[in-house]
Amino acid sequence: MSARVPVTPIDAAEIATYDHETDVLIIGYGCAGASAALEANAAGAEVILLERQSGGGGSSALSGGEMYLGGGTPIQEACGFTDSADAMEKFLLAALGPDADQEKVGLYSRESVDHYQWLVDHGVPFKPSLWDSPTWVPPTDDGLMWMGENAYPFYEIAEPAPRGHRVTSDGFGGKVLMAVLSEAVAKTDIAVHADTTALRLIVEDGRVVGVVARHFNDTVSYRARRGVIITTGGFADNKEMLAQHAPQLVGLGVNSDGGDDGRGIVMAQAVGAAVKHMSAGQVGISLVPGMMVRGMIVNSVGQRFINEDVYPGLVGQAALFKHNLKVWVILDEQAYEEVPVDERWGVQPHFVAETLQELEREIGMPEGALQNTVGEYNRFAEHGEDPYFHKSSRWLRPLQSPFAAIDVQRGMAPPEYGDGGTGGGGAEVFTIGGLRTTVDGRVLDLDGNAIPGLFAAGRATSGLHSWGYISGTSLGDGTFFGRRAGVAASGE
Amino acid sequence: MSARVPVTPIDAAEIATYDHETDVLIIGYGCAGASAALEANAAGAEVILLERQSGGGGSSALSGGEMYLGGGTPIQEACGFTDSADAMEKFLLAALGPDADQEKVGLYSRESVDHYQWLVDHGVPFKPSLWDSPTWVPPTDDGLMWMGENAYPFYEIAEPAPRGHRVTSDGFGGKVLMAVLSEAVAKTDIAVHADTTALRLIVEDGRVVGVVARHFNDTVSYRARRGVIITTGGFADNKEMLAQHAPQLVGLGVNSDGGDDGRGIVMAQAVGAAVKHMSAGQVGISLVPGMMVRGMIVNSVGQRFINEDVYPGLVGQAALFKHNLKVWVILDEQAYEEVPVDERWGVQPHFVAETLQELEREIGMPEGALQNTVGEYNRFAEHGEDPYFHKSSRWLRPLQSPFAAIDVQRGMAPPEYGDGGTGGGGAEVFTIGGLRTTVDGRVLDLDGNAIPGLFAAGRATSGLHSWGYISGTSLGDGTFFGRRAGVAASGE
Repeated sequence: MSARVPVTPIDAAEIATYDHETDVLIIGYGCAGASAALEANAAGAEVILLERQSGGGGSSALSGGEMYLGGGTPIQEACGFTDSADAMEKFLLAALGPDADQEKVGLYSRESVDHYQWLVDHGVPFKPSLWDSPTWVPPTDDGLMWMGENAYPFYEIAEPAPRGHRVTSDGFGGKVLMAVLSEAVAKTDIAVHADTTALRLIVEDGRVVGVVARHFNDTVSYRARRGVIITTGGFADNKEMLAQHAPQLVGLGVNSDGGDDGRGIVMAQAVGAAVKHMSAGQVGISLVPGMMVRGMIVNSVGQRFINEDVYPGLVGQAALFKHNLKVWVILDEQAYEEVPVDERWGVQPHFVAETLQELEREIGMPEGALQNTVGEYNRFAEHGEDPYFHKSSRWLRPLQSPFAAIDVQRGMAPPEYGDGGTGGGGAEVFTIGGLRTTVDGRVLDLDGNAIPGLFAAGRATSGLHSWGYISGTSLGDGTFFGRRAGVAASGE
Repeated sequence: MSARVPVTPIDAAEIATYDHETDVLIIGYGCAGASAALEANAAGAEVILLERQSGGGGSSALSGGEMYLGGGTPIQEACGFTDSADAMEKFLLAALGPDADQEKVGLYSRESVDHYQWLVDHGVPFKPSLWDSPTWVPPTDDGLMWMGENAYPFYEIAEPAPRGHRVTSDGFGGKVLMAVLSEAVAKTDIAVHADTTALRLIVEDGRVVGVVARHFNDTVSYRARRGVIITTGGFADNKEMLAQHAPQLVGLGVNSDGGDDGRGIVMAQAVGAAVKHMSAGQVGISLVPGMMVRGMIVNSVGQRFINEDVYPGLVGQAALFKHNLKVWVILDEQAYEEVPVDERWGVQPHFVAETLQELEREIGMPEGALQNTVGEYNRFAEHGEDPYFHKSSRWLRPLQSPFAAIDVQRGMAPPEYGDGGTGGGGAEVFTIGGLRTTVDGRVLDLDGNAIPGLFAAGRATSGLHSWGYISGTSLGDGTFFGRRAGVAASGE
């Protein structure tokens, strides 16, 4: 790691000659970097793409591969759904709030169908079939999924339509997305410099004009005639930054390629950049949504706290930020059996019991806690109602003996997560706060002015989100605003 | 407001002559600024203290006047309590965490008795009598109070002792504290420049050497030979900064003098300063702790979520961050009557009902919600037990008809709060994140190095706290680390 190399920018006067020169220099070869590179190249700019690892992909390649797209994409239409940019915008403002970025969300929603087309034109595959149950990633290759648009309270806020577009894949789709984008990059004359870690920005009269990087043991300098674009990802791998800005995320599993050390963010701050929402995080809680939705999720004293049919990432945020991850999935045998085997991800209950009283005792909950909660749940479920949390009647049914409990903190082994699937104490997280940027990826300083020559996109920035998070908005805003940053930088 | 004046620092070369020169320049005359000024003056430095308002006091003067002090102060001893710095440190690390500042908390705890003595030597009055019930501020002039040290889980973490030292006062004590410190300042040759708003720092070869300020319509420049100390408070009054860093605090009442616009923080960031814990906030929830502790607090579906005998600020944080402030105090007639009249702050129940079923209906809770919660509570309270949240048996008693409910979001009228006592939608907040500083108040840059010539203390800094908050730690760390900053700056 390069944490001890100062981030203070270097004055251009100190650089006698540059090792490399280009029009647009992009730091980080995940989905945002690839998209920025493709658009800058398409706009006629010479592009160098730096990547600290030996090849492209980044954390994007390890992701589920969902893209949040809507407003009436061909996939939505083929599955029989009508949608509008307005409904998409309303949903995102509610789900990503409070105080999600209105300008970014509005633009992103209005141009979503175009963005879908750009992705498809570059070879990204989506299959026109719906997976119709809450999940992280469909166990099938279905290309469309709900992201809680049809769950309370969102169906009251915006006309629901499924907008999770999942890159066609056997398992997680991020690797397919990055393979496709990398192939597209390889067809151009974009130069990819792998094993190259950007360390400090070079500044000339207040303008960012390049980067000093390390390539194995060598220090290498890059001059960017038009702009530098930071697409280095978030800071989930940097424990010190987590403790300073997002203390609730410390000590959990991390959803990254190991290189999300936040240095891109701090390098930009060192030339005056502003950040926002640094405390926010996506929380991939260690449970099978199909089990949860057929049963319930409760905290350590047996209380439900959310409608279980909402997007599981919102359950994860509630579980971590409101209940310190001390949460349990409670279900009955019928619910467990109803979950398709390939959707179970190998998860077995930690406790099974004939009565709720026994289950309470095994878990260590107050005597009566589950009996009360399940009693209330069943009393209303009988009539297809959930006046407490408004789970859809589709998932409501009185739970019956035998019962089972899954301890979320013991985690499970998600098939393709970066840390080998320990579940990291109940959740895998990544950060969603970062640099303040315009819709064109220009990095803003503390006065709200664009820093000349400096752009950013992806999880190094605060994108669409404020506090809330919905899957598909990272690959979504990374590619979308990455593209815009590429265009803007090449036009300087 | 000066939000549109850029915060970009000014190069000293641009300043032909300074309007004022001094050794130590302090920006902001709250408790931190006053303490810094007194110690810098005592160390022989020439001091100018800038204040944007027409006189000293700041948000400190509007506060309750609690100082978190312990380790065996004369007040604690007179009330019959033994205490240790070790126990104090353990409590604070737990209550202010996760990831509270270990170095600051350790030093603050070890030197707390000395700090108490310094305050008393400067004339701050404390009365050696205990108020023995959860409260924001005792309705009496009692000088010692519990801050939840004797509540679960804290009594398991550290040997409990009451450490809330309340400045003797009729009502809120902040004004007394600031009157005493201002009197001490007035006895020195510290120059106070009121109606003077610092706008930008002046930098010479990477060192902060002064400030450009506005005095009515004039621009005034100050040179500081030894150091500039920022004690400008937090950013609770700056809606844009709240939305960027602490979105959950947007739209609530604010506990400040109206001048907590965060500019001091941003001015320092503009010369490279790092910040931390910007999302954290104190939440002064609109309820009477004495009513809550004798009854219960529940969320919108009637669930309890915390032991009601804990420090009410922690209840407030839980209510806002975990339940969006949609919380109710439920109590019975006996509980209401037991609260001394002068401790009721004029609060009346919003609903009264003979049965819980009626009360649920009036509030709009699911039918059965309160009946279940109160039923469980009563079942265990009968035996002096609370296996759900571990409230002390002292406060446990089965609740009986007639019942009452207080809607926290409707607020109450705290007697002396800054916004006229609307309660601001259920809570009055202030921010507790800010500049990263050493224990000597040196402001750190993004590389963790001290910025030459720049110091800070009080709520412009991230003090002892990470996410949690206990009353008395702001006046406490403001005065304590303000003093240290004054000493350090004068020694440059």
